Amino acid sequence: MRARTRLLDVNTGNFTVFINPEDAKEGRLHPEDLVKIETGKRTVYGTVAIGDFVGRGEIGISQDILEVQPFSEGEAVVVVPAGTPESVRYIRKKMRGEKLRKVEIEAIVKDIVDRKLRDVEISAFVTALEINGLDMDEIAALTVAMAETGHMLDIDRKPIMDVHSIGGVPGNKTNVLVVPIVAAAGLTIPKTSSRAITSAAGTADVVEVLTNVTLSLDEIKRIVEKIGACLVWGGALNLAPADDITIKVERRLSIDPRGLMLASIMSKKYAIGSQYILIDIPTGRGVKVESMEEARSLARDFIELGKRLGQYVEVAITYGGQPIGHTVGPALEAKEALEALMTGKGPGSLIEKALGLAGILLEMGGVAPAGMGKKIAREILESGKAYQKMREIIAEQGGDPDIKPDDVPIGDKTYTFTAPTSGYVTGIDNRAVTAIAREAGAPEDKGAGITFHVKVGEKVKEGDPLFTIHAESETRLDRAIVLARRLDPIKIEGMVLQRIGNI
Amino acid sequence: MRARTRLLDVNTGNFTVFINPEDAKEGRLHPEDLVKIETGKRTVYGTVAIGDFVGRGEIGISQDILEVQPFSEGEAVVVVPAGTPESVRYIRKKMRGEKLRKVEIEAIVKDIVDRKLRDVEISAFVTALEINGLDMDEIAALTVAMAETGHMLDIDRKPIMDVHSIGGVPGNKTNVLVVPIVAAAGLTIPKTSSRAITSAAGTADVVEVLTNVTLSLDEIKRIVEKIGACLVWGGALNLAPADDITIKVERRLSIDPRGLMLASIMSKKYAIGSQYILIDIPTGRGVKVESMEEARSLARDFIELGKRLGQYVEVAITYGGQPIGHTVGPALEAKEALEALMTGKGPGSLIEKALGLAGILLEMGGVAPAGMGKKIAREILESGKAYQKMREIIAEQGGDPDIKPDDVPIGDKTYTFTAPTSGYVTGIDNRAVTAIAREAGAPEDKGAGITFHVKVGEKVKEGDPLFTIHAESETRLDRAIVLARRLDPIKIEGMVLQRIGNI
Repeated sequence: MRARTRLLDVNTGNFTVFINPEDAKEGRLHPEDLVKIETGKRTVYGTVAIGDFVGRGEIGISQDILEVQPFSEGEAVVVVPAGTPESVRYIRKKMRGEKLRKVEIEAIVKDIVDRKLRDVEISAFVTALEINGLDMDEIAALTVAMAETGHMLDIDRKPIMDVHSIGGVPGNKTNVLVVPIVAAAGLTIPKTSSRAITSAAGTADVVEVLTNVTLSLDEIKRIVEKIGACLVWGGALNLAPADDITIKVERRLSIDPRGLMLASIMSKKYAIGSQYILIDIPTGRGVKVESMEEARSLARDFIELGKRLGQYVEVAITYGGQPIGHTVGPALEAKEALEALMTGKGPGSLIEKALGLAGILLEMGGVAPAGMGKKIAREILESGKAYQKMREIIAEQGGDPDIKPDDVPIGDKTYTFTAPTSGYVTGIDNRAVTAIAREAGAPEDKGAGITFHVKVGEKVKEGDPLFTIHAESETRLDRAIVLARRLDPIKIEGMVLQRIGNI
Repeated sequence: MRARTRLLDVNTGNFTVFINPEDAKEGRLHPEDLVKIETGKRTVYGTVAIGDFVGRGEIGISQDILEVQPFSEGEAVVVVPAGTPESVRYIRKKMRGEKLRKVEIEAIVKDIVDRKLRDVEISAFVTALEINGLDMDEIAALTVAMAETGHMLDIDRKPIMDVHSIGGVPGNKTNVLVVPIVAAAGLTIPKTSSRAITSAAGTADVVEVLTNVTLSLDEIKRIVEKIGACLVWGGALNLAPADDITIKVERRLSIDPRGLMLASIMSKKYAIGSQYILIDIPTGRGVKVESMEEARSLARDFIELGKRLGQYVEVAITYGGQPIGHTVGPALEAKEALEALMTGKGPGSLIEKALGLAGILLEMGGVAPAGMGKKIAREILESGKAYQKMREIIAEQGGDPDIKPDDVPIGDKTYTFTAPTSGYVTGIDNRAVTAIAREAGAPEDKGAGITFHVKVGEKVKEGDPLFTIHAESETRLDRAIVLARRLDPIKIEGMVLQRIGNI
């Protein structure tokens, strides 16, 4: 059918197009049908919904389509039913446990990006991957296909360094220190990060407290070519967009097939042109990777995949058994990171991890002799050069470089939990910490989160403060307190762990 | 959040609820979030979309929700985010290849029916079943769970017979003959059928040409208790509703996991109280089951599953290598079936199949001695008793029992293909026939379809008519002609099939 576009302020998340009931009947279109919307220039795919609030001869275009495909009001388009995409056959091939060819993987990825494949098909694909896996040939093909169906960055500096932390240790603001240290040493590191999805604060959420993180690829190129670094949000850059789409489905199912996880991370690095990549795998209870054995196996896969893609990859397996530093939540973490950069000092877990990672990168990039990276990183941090670089990053990205830790607004509704008994802190539960910080409002409420007054191994007396919850509203604070009481995130035990008497 | 319902004339197929952008922001709701909508009496699940055409404090309820859940305009409800349903864990368990317990299967089915599981999760479930399968314990549990989460029929007559044809042989109006024959013999057969999904005409589409097929369960009970039979559409009866939901997903993926197929068919029979069930498995090129070996294995599963459910099942493996009878399409098939009932005569493939199936049912139901069923069925058909029963069915369901074959309106736009050469008909391509009939407008245009002038094995001379396409509009006729030219559904070969000369 022929129709004129009508732009709607509706967002279904499903690339919905709305069609008048009469038009739908005439054109034999049903809810959830896939249609092709053709203009002179291009073809866009959408999912049919029927609604009487669009007139006859109109096609209502929802916001989620407009975000990726510009349409103007009243544009003449042709709407035709689209058949089943060919790539569904390749998804079935993977269901049968067969190895996919490069062109088949490319077809699946292209159809995901074009929205020809929708939730049903993408879910079948990730489920088939979860069950039947991918070999390294397939993973490499998937990684390149994901990168090449999105935007690519070409920075005119060499070498390009990168660092990436996988999987959910709370309070992990480490890379806010690592990036300026590495750039202050003269290396180039265009760091893109994600916002929190299931955590309390992603690196992008933290940096956003200090400066703007939503930049275009052109702005990033200009800044990185000028000062050697950036700390931006990767989400709006259309880097490996198939990854963002599949991740939404994986999250609904709580699965994370390894091949897809590798391709997800490395496709973004490939798209941004990274050549030397350090992967940080936090390992411990309550994070994505719980055992050293699993961490090592994953490390080997990252390194092998890097080889296939022409990237040099190293892996740092780091301690992830409790939160990093003393804070969790965007503003609290930004404040802690800024303080560490300004003073060169801070919680041991934060400083040592940041210097360790930065040191490896300095050695990888050839600006520190083997074994000297961490020492040089410490000099850069303590001398204030890293802080100076961070000021440049803040300024170039549009923030105020003179921002001080005390300028950072923290949620003023607070509640402090104290030790119910004397003893030693034997554990801090990562998952509970994240859940409580989110209940307090993080990451949407930037000022919400948790400050820790103790860490694992410390001795406490009854009544000593253990942690403080910060929130921006009383409602959220109350909810977080209730959850904290239930989850009891800090474990305190005496030296006598168990007493067994007469039975 | 608290909200007042606003009933919308919108159908997304996704159980969508529309929320105002400001409310969504305040309530931290995002597109595609699952929400619980609570009233005093009940809880309904919906998927969030954001739209400015609902006001603040309103929640827009779409038609697909209203079809299964009554809401009145302006009803006060509470809308809260719903967490991930517990049953997603059991879907992951099946991904790992583990056997599901009865309670786990029940939880999945209940959450499907309650719409807590949506496309993403259901697709993961059917994909996991396609890859890892179900054993007979699981299939039996799934069948019962599917039946018990929907309506059940309790007919006060014994025994209850049933017949079901699986998988797509075109022109299969057989059961329109079988049901009145069996009922005329004094047995009870409450036959529910589906409309065409991928075929050119389902039994419900065919019968609808002769009488009303959309009845309530109460009406069905009344009619069957009175005359021993019905021929109705099963779709609106809420029999095993989980099945209808999963089938939509399977169709998108073109998969049909055996365990799910068995449960799908048998759950409807279980819900309607059938005790003696004949399963017809058409076997041949271009239908669902292509080999005798596969048909036999499937037959064993049907029989075994029946035992678990307390049903006596027999299976007829029938010839499905070409269309049944001479017609394909709702009205053409209804006309052919009515003629056969009135005259006791018709195409051999139709009459012999119908009598064969009816005969088995008469023996299963104890009204014919072993080996005599088909003969008795023939007597019932030829004596006009079956036609008399069909008149009762038509009348009780609300149609005119005096309807004559010539009263059935057939599409008057026609085109006849003739033999391009003399020879023998060596094949009629089922899939091509279905595609051409659908292109001509079937099943929506009841008068559209195909009449065959020849069947496999017949001798033809150049210029003899092969088949006629019927359509209700010139446009559809033209499209069907184009497709028929391309697909060339009837194969004619001389006795010399290939000549190999000097190379």
